[in-house]
Amino acid sequence: MLSDIEIAQQTTLAPIETVAEKLEISKESVELYGKFKAKITLPEDKKAPLGKLILVTSINPTPAGEGKTTVSIGLADGLKKIHKNAVLALREPSLGPVMGLKGGATGGGYSQVLPMEEINLHFTGDIHAITTANNALSALIDNHIHQGNELGIDPQQIIWKRSLDLNDRALRHTVIGLGNKAQGVPREEGFDISVASEIMAVVCLARDLSDLKSRLAKIVIGYTYESQPVTVHDLQVEGALALLLKEAMKPNLVQTMEQTPAFIHGGPFANIAHGCNSVVATKAALRLGEYAVTEAGFGADLGAEKFLDIKVPNLEKAPDVVVVVATVRALKMHGGLASDQLENINLSALEKGFANLKKHVQNMQKYQLPVVVAINEFATDQTSELSLLQKLCQKIGVKAIRSSAWAEGGMGAKDLAQTVVDTINQQKADYKRLYQDYLPLEDKIKKVACEIYGAREVSFETNARKQLKEFEKNGWDQLPICIAKTQYSLSDNANLLGVPDDFVLTVREIVPKMGAGFLVVLTGNILTMPGLPKYPAALNMDIDVNGNASGLF
Amino acid sequence: MLSDIEIAQQTTLAPIETVAEKLEISKESVELYGKFKAKITLPEDKKAPLGKLILVTSINPTPAGEGKTTVSIGLADGLKKIHKNAVLALREPSLGPVMGLKGGATGGGYSQVLPMEEINLHFTGDIHAITTANNALSALIDNHIHQGNELGIDPQQIIWKRSLDLNDRALRHTVIGLGNKAQGVPREEGFDISVASEIMAVVCLARDLSDLKSRLAKIVIGYTYESQPVTVHDLQVEGALALLLKEAMKPNLVQTMEQTPAFIHGGPFANIAHGCNSVVATKAALRLGEYAVTEAGFGADLGAEKFLDIKVPNLEKAPDVVVVVATVRALKMHGGLASDQLENINLSALEKGFANLKKHVQNMQKYQLPVVVAINEFATDQTSELSLLQKLCQKIGVKAIRSSAWAEGGMGAKDLAQTVVDTINQQKADYKRLYQDYLPLEDKIKKVACEIYGAREVSFETNARKQLKEFEKNGWDQLPICIAKTQYSLSDNANLLGVPDDFVLTVREIVPKMGAGFLVVLTGNILTMPGLPKYPAALNMDIDVNGNASGLF
Repeated sequence: MLSDIEIAQQTTLAPIETVAEKLEISKESVELYGKFKAKITLPEDKKAPLGKLILVTSINPTPAGEGKTTVSIGLADGLKKIHKNAVLALREPSLGPVMGLKGGATGGGYSQVLPMEEINLHFTGDIHAITTANNALSALIDNHIHQGNELGIDPQQIIWKRSLDLNDRALRHTVIGLGNKAQGVPREEGFDISVASEIMAVVCLARDLSDLKSRLAKIVIGYTYESQPVTVHDLQVEGALALLLKEAMKPNLVQTMEQTPAFIHGGPFANIAHGCNSVVATKAALRLGEYAVTEAGFGADLGAEKFLDIKVPNLEKAPDVVVVVATVRALKMHGGLASDQLENINLSALEKGFANLKKHVQNMQKYQLPVVVAINEFATDQTSELSLLQKLCQKIGVKAIRSSAWAEGGMGAKDLAQTVVDTINQQKADYKRLYQDYLPLEDKIKKVACEIYGAREVSFETNARKQLKEFEKNGWDQLPICIAKTQYSLSDNANLLGVPDDFVLTVREIVPKMGAGFLVVLTGNILTMPGLPKYPAALNMDIDVNGNASGLF
Repeated sequence: MLSDIEIAQQTTLAPIETVAEKLEISKESVELYGKFKAKITLPEDKKAPLGKLILVTSINPTPAGEGKTTVSIGLADGLKKIHKNAVLALREPSLGPVMGLKGGATGGGYSQVLPMEEINLHFTGDIHAITTANNALSALIDNHIHQGNELGIDPQQIIWKRSLDLNDRALRHTVIGLGNKAQGVPREEGFDISVASEIMAVVCLARDLSDLKSRLAKIVIGYTYESQPVTVHDLQVEGALALLLKEAMKPNLVQTMEQTPAFIHGGPFANIAHGCNSVVATKAALRLGEYAVTEAGFGADLGAEKFLDIKVPNLEKAPDVVVVVATVRALKMHGGLASDQLENINLSALEKGFANLKKHVQNMQKYQLPVVVAINEFATDQTSELSLLQKLCQKIGVKAIRSSAWAEGGMGAKDLAQTVVDTINQQKADYKRLYQDYLPLEDKIKKVACEIYGAREVSFETNARKQLKEFEKNGWDQLPICIAKTQYSLSDNANLLGVPDDFVLTVREIVPKMGAGFLVVLTGNILTMPGLPKYPAALNMDIDVNGNASGLF
């Protein structure tokens, strides 16, 4: 069997100008980055009609694999097969996981976005620009303190962290500014992976350069000795940061293996951030495509909830349908099977695990959106399992369509595409937010925890309870919330698969992300700087004398 | 008077494809990065005739300014004015100084390379790729130790440092790996600015991808508990690092304000590295131009010496002429004037300061190369000063030509261009290295210190003397040397202007750069991570709603 990168390297791509031309993007709006990538600047056109928005999400991920990106890509290619003009809007991969465990993050098999080496490595430099802006801000903060500290920033109350787009556990907890008086002021510091930087969230939610600058200005970097918030605007560097992010704000156009256009732009974490590609990219896809296919990170409890409660108000357009991806293998794990038993037929485990899918489908229906289930097929799936899963879905009133896009590309997702189109035509989406921003902060947290995760109640640790009051005092409580929780369970305990009930969600800390425009609510211990495994993917990566890559899965 | 960025923004650029076309670069060899930047991959062609190589260097820099880059750009534009096909090969600017004190680093006035905002900010991402490869290696080292440390790397003897392309003094001395057993192994660490990374030097000296990989493999990252060197090859990650640097190896094509083609590629420090643009870029300029104009960092004692003793053997082509840039103002400072007295005529200070220029001219002649002096004119220069300087040069047998390229572009450097061409035609360059690599390490250091810097002798601190023996034992002593010394003086004391005599150069430490292929000899305290000033340039930077930059000088 060919590896993803081998399949990718066998594929003939269209020059990206041709892809742009077919979308009727004017030549002036296209900036090429090599032959197969481009940055696009669409002129403002308020009257442009928008396409239909398809949001792809999934059950809680398991080690068995769900393939949400693969299904998204396959679905867009499938729409093309039934003669619809579809445009993808996806996240750009972080280098950390690419070098670490995961290899590429550009789909798989015959449903990939290309050129996969370049998208997975530096792409058009967006994340590097974000890393640079993030760390320039850090350097400016420490320099401000070193040069007299006019603002009275308390080195022990700085919440802005440095970042690198790598998996590097040794940078989680550090001390900087050591040496002597000339080497800065000593303080504790930590590094996050760049995609966890608030600047990533800001770039992904900003409508345009002016919105970008005003969001950057609002970022709270820490507190004074009197515990008053200090913002980027206090440091007067929002202009410099916006300048560093100028190119990163432009969405990137690439293509699938079947030459379907794909915007790949922005990639914030789906726990401490909102987990979906940029507003500008999704808007571009909506303006250029009859159907825009987009994806939300992790499972529907994290990614889709945040898409619907955080991104949609900024996008000013809600999904017309939600596609929930599930696999027979993963549902069997949710039903209690161990990962080495997934090859065997086990209908009762499947039926038990179905509860996880059902909960996510019902959650999406709370937003008054039509839902379609996509079954991402694996070679080991048994017909009896596939038809049981379809029957179970039918019982709860949703269609479950098999997709073999991984093995067959768009042809394998034709049925799924047709069902999605029919659903959009037949069922009216009547998007309703889960909560209004003016609800008390505590109530907003309870609403998501109880209604989406299924928690019995929410408990606030002492510090978090104190913060509820402080945030109210600062006038920060009117923002939407972004709960950081494990992706592996509906609860805050990664080991509870299926549909945990009778659990209490514990809130540890609340972090203001005033630039992004949401409050991060931390439950459990969320790693914002991953580590490398014993044998990192990097050990297998290589390049030959002609510049051909290998080892990128 | 218009600022550099205002002049730049008023200039009409040719599409970069047109610039490439005029150089007869085939369409397949051009990868566009936006409308005005491109990466070029020239097919190997051993028989292609090479153009003439013009190396631009200068006296020791002073706060008065020399304008080496401005003269280089003006000279290339001047060659075009006299109907010669000239191509520039320059370094790419580091973001640290741009955000800090210096603003842009792309020439000035009417001699600039463009688009200056993009070249000064992220350009085509080369330095970001180098930063990423540098820090990926760090993460892999710390992960190796954390995961069992099979190679027995001693955390106290790691010489590989992390890097960021920023001025950030607080990162000079840090402790990482704090927290607990899961957060890595605690150790001391420091960050360098990315342009000081050995990977920058490797990219700039590598001939091609295969040379790149073999150089990366040889990098020594530290020592085992038994004090045996540990290389990148021992960690098995040269393939991954080379893959990360694939695009960064391709030279970048841009243009001057007068549409003269310019390769801007690579920018290593000129103290702890060799201080000139990449071998591949200079080679490209030599293959495409009748005349290739290139520049070496800092003064001729550092930049040109390293160009001639380190880069030329890798380039396999020596300069046909050396242009030494001087200004009346700077020579008056070398003659003892304070910076607030430079506006007044002072012929005796000029004559005294001329000694610095004379020493650099004579140094270049030791390599058996023809020399031309370029006088970079300032508005405050007096005719009597300019003619005195020309007379002094005449006395030592070199022509000194005035350049007003800053104010007038190529027209202001026509005479300089004509003189350079005449000199190449009339005087034979017969390049001879200052030392052979097989000389004992101590002798090589003495040779540069005494013959180029004018030191009376060299003293080795205890540790350095120990290293002389260790390096011999490791077989590392056969490499060329790269002395890190202040740029402001011929000596290792920044305050000694003019031509210091009777000084002893003190060697503190020797650092193996086995990938770059040279040994860094540290004298004095060389900062490899700059700091920001009290009012960093970043405070003035901004961007308007249409994406126009300001504050980049």
